[in-house]
Amino acid sequence: MSFNTFGHLFRVTTWGESHGPALGATVDGCPPRIPLEPDAIQHCMDRRRPGQSRYTTQRREPDRVEILSGVFDGMTTGTPIQLLIKNTDQRSKDYSEIAEKFRPGHADITYWQKYGIRDYRGGGRSSARETAARVAAGGVAREVIRSLVPGARIQGYMVQMGPHRIDRERFDWDEIERNPFWTPDAAAADRWAGYLDGIRKAGSSTGAVIEVVASGFPAGLGAPIYAKLDAELALAMMSINAVKGVEIGEGMAASDLVGEENADEISMGPDGPEFSSNHAGGILGGISTGQDIVVRFAVKPTSSILKPRRTITKSGNATQIVTKGRHDPCVGIRAVPVGEAMMACVILDHLLLCRGQIGENCGGRIG
Amino acid sequence: MSFNTFGHLFRVTTWGESHGPALGATVDGCPPRIPLEPDAIQHCMDRRRPGQSRYTTQRREPDRVEILSGVFDGMTTGTPIQLLIKNTDQRSKDYSEIAEKFRPGHADITYWQKYGIRDYRGGGRSSARETAARVAAGGVAREVIRSLVPGARIQGYMVQMGPHRIDRERFDWDEIERNPFWTPDAAAADRWAGYLDGIRKAGSSTGAVIEVVASGFPAGLGAPIYAKLDAELALAMMSINAVKGVEIGEGMAASDLVGEENADEISMGPDGPEFSSNHAGGILGGISTGQDIVVRFAVKPTSSILKPRRTITKSGNATQIVTKGRHDPCVGIRAVPVGEAMMACVILDHLLLCRGQIGENCGGRIG
Amino acid sequence: MSFNTFGHLFRVTTWGESHGPALGATVDGCPPRIPLEPDAIQHCMDRRRPGQSRYTTQRREPDRVEILSGVFDGMTTGTPIQLLIKNTDQRSKDYSEIAEKFRPGHADITYWQKYGIRDYRGGGRSSARETAARVAAGGVAREVIRSLVPGARIQGYMVQMGPHRIDRERFDWDEIERNPFWTPDAAAADRWAGYLDGIRKAGSSTGAVIEVVASGFPAGLGAPIYAKLDAELALAMMSINAVKGVEIGEGMAASDLVGEENADEISMGPDGPEFSSNHAGGILGGISTGQDIVVRFAVKPTSSILKPRRTITKSGNATQIVTKGRHDPCVGIRAVPVGEAMMACVILDHLLLCRGQIGENCGGRIG
Amino acid sequence: MSFNTFGHLFRVTTWGESHGPALGATVDGCPPRIPLEPDAIQHCMDRRRPGQSRYTTQRREPDRVEILSGVFDGMTTGTPIQLLIKNTDQRSKDYSEIAEKFRPGHADITYWQKYGIRDYRGGGRSSARETAARVAAGGVAREVIRSLVPGARIQGYMVQMGPHRIDRERFDWDEIERNPFWTPDAAAADRWAGYLDGIRKAGSSTGAVIEVVASGFPAGLGAPIYAKLDAELALAMMSINAVKGVEIGEGMAASDLVGEENADEISMGPDGPEFSSNHAGGILGGISTGQDIVVRFAVKPTSSILKPRRTITKSGNATQIVTKGRHDPCVGIRAVPVGEAMMACVILDHLLLCRGQIGENCGGRIG
Repeated sequence: MSFNTFGHLFRVTTWGESHGPALGATVDGCPPRIPLEPDAIQHCMDRRRPGQSRYTTQRREPDRVEILSGVFDGMTTGTPIQLLIKNTDQRSKDYSEIAEKFRPGHADITYWQKYGIRDYRGGGRSSARETAARVAAGGVAREVIRSLVPGARIQGYMVQMGPHRIDRERFDWDEIERNPFWTPDAAAADRWAGYLDGIRKAGSSTGAVIEVVASGFPAGLGAPIYAKLDAELALAMMSINAVKGVEIGEGMAASDLVGEENADEISMGPDGPEFSSNHAGGILGGISTGQDIVVRFAVKPTSSILKPRRTITKSGNATQIVTKGRHDPCVGIRAVPVGEAMMACVILDHLLLCRGQIGENCGGRIG
Repeated sequence: MSFNTFGHLFRVTTWGESHGPALGATVDGCPPRIPLEPDAIQHCMDRRRPGQSRYTTQRREPDRVEILSGVFDGMTTGTPIQLLIKNTDQRSKDYSEIAEKFRPGHADITYWQKYGIRDYRGGGRSSARETAARVAAGGVAREVIRSLVPGARIQGYMVQMGPHRIDRERFDWDEIERNPFWTPDAAAADRWAGYLDGIRKAGSSTGAVIEVVASGFPAGLGAPIYAKLDAELALAMMSINAVKGVEIGEGMAASDLVGEENADEISMGPDGPEFSSNHAGGILGGISTGQDIVVRFAVKPTSSILKPRRTITKSGNATQIVTKGRHDPCVGIRAVPVGEAMMACVILDHLLLCRGQIGENCGGRIG
Repeated sequence: MSFNTFGHLFRVTTWGESHGPALGATVDGCPPRIPLEPDAIQHCMDRRRPGQSRYTTQRREPDRVEILSGVFDGMTTGTPIQLLIKNTDQRSKDYSEIAEKFRPGHADITYWQKYGIRDYRGGGRSSARETAARVAAGGVAREVIRSLVPGARIQGYMVQMGPHRIDRERFDWDEIERNPFWTPDAAAADRWAGYLDGIRKAGSSTGAVIEVVASGFPAGLGAPIYAKLDAELALAMMSINAVKGVEIGEGMAASDLVGEENADEISMGPDGPEFSSNHAGGILGGISTGQDIVVRFAVKPTSSILKPRRTITKSGNATQIVTKGRHDPCVGIRAVPVGEAMMACVILDHLLLCRGQIGENCGGRIG
Repeated sequence: MSFNTFGHLFRVTTWGESHGPALGATVDGCPPRIPLEPDAIQHCMDRRRPGQSRYTTQRREPDRVEILSGVFDGMTTGTPIQLLIKNTDQRSKDYSEIAEKFRPGHADITYWQKYGIRDYRGGGRSSARETAARVAAGGVAREVIRSLVPGARIQGYMVQMGPHRIDRERFDWDEIERNPFWTPDAAAADRWAGYLDGIRKAGSSTGAVIEVVASGFPAGLGAPIYAKLDAELALAMMSINAVKGVEIGEGMAASDLVGEENADEISMGPDGPEFSSNHAGGILGGISTGQDIVVRFAVKPTSSILKPRRTITKSGNATQIVTKGRHDPCVGIRAVPVGEAMMACVILDHLLLCRGQIGENCGGRIG
C-alpha cells in the first residue's frame, strides 16, 4: 500500500478531488474473462449516492461510472480498468472563508502543514467524495468474487448511531435494505430517525458504528505476518474518512474476556470444521477460518457543523468558523457501502494472493 | 506491506519460527551514519524478554541480538541490517499431542488449512516469539528517530487488564517503568496483581488494552489516501499476535460524540497551532497534526490455558485439549514494548517518506 | 513495479487501450508546489505525436492531455495527477481478420495465451499508443526535475537506423531537433531518409538504436542492490514496446575490453571528482557518479508489414497475414521521446528515494 | 523491487557484506510443501564457489548454506526461508590504503558519495560476494520449479570472453559442465584458457558475455506493461555486479533487421503453436510464448587489477592505486550460476503471479 494505491494483486489506485472535473479509480490485476456490465457497478454506486434521504448531504451527483478501459465485449481483459466519475454538482460559491481558515476536526490544517498547498474547495482530495471511487472499484471486486466464489456474500449495516446501539436480538438481514440507515434492527431505525432529525435541526452531527460481514469465503485467506487478513482489513477500514477505530470479531471487548470464554471451540461438521462461536471474527493468526469474517468500524461525527468553532487563519489569527455547506448529519450512513467495497477489495486480493502462492486447491484437508 | 515485510522506505522483514535455530529481522532502507550500538537494541529486547516476573511465561531466553550486517564502525551504512536472535530454550518435549490436535483460538487450524503443513512446535511462525524480531527492528528505528527528531518520545503502557481500567486521574508517566504491567496507575497495578494471580492460579488467561503515545513528532506525517498514518498504524498494531481492535484517539467511542464535542478547536501558540483537545489522536485526514499520536489496541486472552477445550484432530475426530506449556496469563504485558516498536517503525517510515516526497523543510507555515 | 505501475515514490500507473475511448496515466507521489502547466506536458506529447513526417504512422491524434486532478492554481498539490488523453482517430474498419489471426512478432498470440481474451483493435493494451501515457507522465517528471535540479538535462537521440550508425565525430547536439530522426549526425539523417523511404516503399520496416543521456544530476542516485539505477533504467527501457536490448555506458561492448581500458580514472576537479572517461555510463555499483548517465536501447523493426507472413488462426489453422493499417516503418523514431520520458521518471524517483533515505545534503564530501 | 528486495510473490531479500560475519537471503512467499534439502541448494552454491580453478579468485569459502527457518520435516512451510552463509575467509590484512583511496571502476566512490560511509573491506555490500545469496535463493526457486513445472530447465553458459565469441555451430549442451568457463563450445574453451592465462599473468582482467536459456516453461508469463517478463529479466540481470548490457533474443542486433526477417512465423504443431525462429527470445509483448526464453548479459572486466590507475583520496588528493587482493581475471565465469539463479527467481515469481491473477489453467486455447 503506497500513497493512493492499495492491494497486492488486485490493486486499486484512486485519484481526483471533490471539486475537480472528475475522480476515479484504476483497477489493476483483475482476472480476465469476468463479465462486467456498467450496471453492476452502478448498482453499488447508487447505494452510496448522496441525496437519497433527508439524512444525507443534499449535494446531487448522478455518480455515473464510465468504464474507459480494461473491458472488451462485456468482459474484463486482465488489463487496467479505468473507472471515471464526473463531478457535476460543484456549485460555484464563495470559497474565500474556507480558503483562509482551517475547519477544526478537518484535514484542512494537516494538508496545509504537509503540502503547503491545498485544494480547499469541498475538502479537495480529503473529501469523502473520494469514497465514490472506492465503491466503483468494489463493484468490480464484487463481480469477480461472484465468479470465483459463487454464493459468497458481503453485507454491511449500521449497529450504532451516536450512543444508540441496535438490539442484536432483533437482527433481521432483510430489514437492512428497507430503512435509510442500513440497520438490521427496525426498531432502532425508528428511534434513530427521530434522534437524527434532532441532530440535523440543531446543526450538529453524530457518529456511528458500522459492521461488515463476509460470508461463504474459504479458509486460508491472509498472508502472515504483515499481510494478515485482519491487519489489512484494519488498514482498509481505517483509511475511510472519519474512521477512528476498527474491530475484528470481539474487538476491543476481547480484553474483558478470560481465555476459556474467548477460544472458539472446534467440532467436525459435514463440510469441515465448525466452531461453537465466533469471537475471533473468522480470523485466527491472520488467516480466515471459513467462518463469517466480521469487521466493525467507528465513524466520528462530521466536523462540518453549523455551530461555531474556534480556529485560526493561515496567517495564524484567531477566528471562528461555521461550516454552512451541504453535509451529512451522520456520515456513517454512507460509509456502509464504502465498508462493503473495502471488504470486497481486500478479500478478493487475498483470494488471488493465496491462489498465487499455494494454488487453486490450496491447503490441508481435515478429516 | 507484503507477506513478511512492512514499511515503504524503512522496511522490516522478519523471519523465523519459535523452535527453529534462530529468528530475526532484516531492516532495509535505514538512513546511513546513525550511531547504532547493540546495547541500544538490547535495552528494547530486555523490556520484552520473558521470565522477568511471575506474570510472564517462564520460558527463559536471553534474547541477545547479533548485528550481522549493515553497521560499520558503530554506524549504520545504509545497507540492510540483519538482526539475529538465537532460540536457546526450545525444550525438548513431546509434541505429539499438539501435532495432531488444533488448539481452539490458535492459528494451528488456519495454518493447516492454508498451507497444508505447519511447524507445530511452540506455534511455529505464528508464535508470539516472532515479536522479538519486531522489537529488535524497533530498536533500530528508535535510534534513527533519536538522531532525526531529538526530543521525540514513544511510550506504551497498559490501560486495561481484563475488565479493569486505569483511572486517568492517577496517570503518572514515571510509574510506568516501576510495575510489572507497564501501567501509569500505581493503584491499578496493585489491583491487577491480585487479579492476575487469580487468573494464573485458575489456569486461565485475561485480555488487556495497551495505549502507545508518540510525542514530539512534526505535523505532516502520513501519505493519504491509502498510506494514511492512522491506517498504517492500524495495520501495524492489528498484525501483532492476539490483537483484535485498534483505536486512534477517541477510537470506537467517537461514535458516541456529537460534532461540536469531537472537533478539536485550534488556536495559535508560540510555536505554531495548538489544539484545545485531542479527540483526533493527533491525526486528521491521515496526516499528523503535531499533537501526541495516540493509538490503543486490545489483546485477547491467551488461548493457551489449562482448562480443557473441545476441538478436533487432523483426522477430524472430536477430542479435547489442555495446553500445558509455559505461557503468559496476560500476553498484553509483553505487547507493550511490541506496540512501541511498531509505532517507532511506522513513524520513522513516514518521516522518511515525507522527506522523500516533500523535502526537509516540508509543508506550509502558519502565521 | 507491479503490473501497470512503476516507481517507488514517484509512481506512474498507466491505463487504456489503443481503440478505447481514452488512455492515460496516474502520477502519484509528486512533490507539491511544482508549477505545472498543461503546455509543458503538451510540448512533450507533441514530440511523440504521430503523423508529423512521412516516416511515422499516418494515424492523426491531437493527443491533447487533460489534467483531471492533482493540480490547483497551476501548482501540483502532492495528490494524484490524472492525465487523460482521448483517442480520437480510431477509424471504424473491419477487424475480422486481425480478430482471428495472430500477427507474427506481435503480442496478439501471447495476450491470447495468457488472458484468453484480447482487445484486438489496434493491438489493444499492447499497442505502442500506450507510450503516449508515459510521455505525459514524463512531462510531469521533467517539470519537477526543473524545480529540484535546475540545469539538469535529459536528451534522447537516434544513433543507429537499421544497420547504419551515426559517426560520433559528427555529433552535434543542436542537430537533434532539426531532423525527423532526432539524430545528432546531419549526414546520417540524410542517408537514413533515403534508406527509410526504400524500406517504406517496400512495405517493410527497420530497427533502430536510441541513446538517452541525462546530464547535470548529482552523484548518489540508485538504491542497491535491487533498485540500482542501471537496473531500474534497464527495466524502464525494456518495458517500451519493441525494445530487445538495453545498454549502460559501454554496454555489450564492455566484454571486449580489458580492465585497464574499462576503469575510468578519477581526478579532482574544481567542483568535485572528475573522470577521464565514461565507460561506466555514469553509474558504478548501481549508483550515479555525477557524470552523464548514458543508456541505449535497441528497437526491433515493426512486425506490422505489408509482406505476407505465415501464421495460424485462433482455431489453429495455417494461414497468412498482411498488416495493412497505418504503421511506422521505423518505430524507433517515436521511441526517442518515450525513452526520455522513462529516464525522467526513473531519475526523479531516485532523487526522491535518496532524499527520503538520506536527506537533502546527502552523502559524503570529497576533498 | 525496492532496495534489497526483488520479486512480487516469490520475494527475495538479501543482506550482508563481504567481510562481515555472514550474509544471506530471506525467501518469502515460497509455496508450501515443496521438498527442500540443503544439498539441493548447496549444489547451486558449489557451482558459484570461488577457488575451483586457476581462473577464479583464490579466496576459499566453503559457502555452506544454513536454512534457519521456513522448512519443517524437509518441506517448505510457506513462511520465510532464511538462508545464511558464514564468511570464513576474511583475511586480516591492512585496509588502510583501500580505506582512503577510491578504486577506479568500483563502487567505492559512489557508496561514499551516496552514504558518506562505507565498509571498504573487500567492497562491503558492493562486493560480488553478495551474489552467493542470490544463488542460494535461486536454489530454492529451482526446487519449486521442479515441483510446479516438471521438465523445465534453466541453463547458463558463456558465449564470449573478451573479444572472442563461441562458434554457434559447435554448440554442445553437454560440454557446458566440462570446462571451467561453462561454455558449450569446446574449442572456444581451449582458446580462452590461453587467452585468460595471458590476461591473468599481465595482472589485467577481461569481460564476458553470458547467455541464460529457460526451456519448457508455459506461455503466458509476464505482467504487462511494467512487469513484463523481459523488463523484469533486464532488471534482474542488470542488478548483477559488473553487468553493463542485457539482451532478449536478438538483442541489440534487432536494430539491424528488417521486419520480415524479425517476425517469427507461426505454425500449428502437435502440442500447440510453433515458431519458425526465435528472434523474440521467447517473449512477445512482455509475455512468454512457450518457446525458449533467451537472455544475454555482458560483464565488464574486473576493475581490480594489478596495473596502476590514477585516482584520488577521500581528501581529494591525486594518487595511484593497484589492487593487490585475490580477484577473478574474468568475473564473468562465476556470473553464470548467478544469471541462472536470477532467471529461476524471476520466472518462478511470474508463474505464481500468473496463477494468482488468472488461475491454474490460465489463458486461451488455440486450436
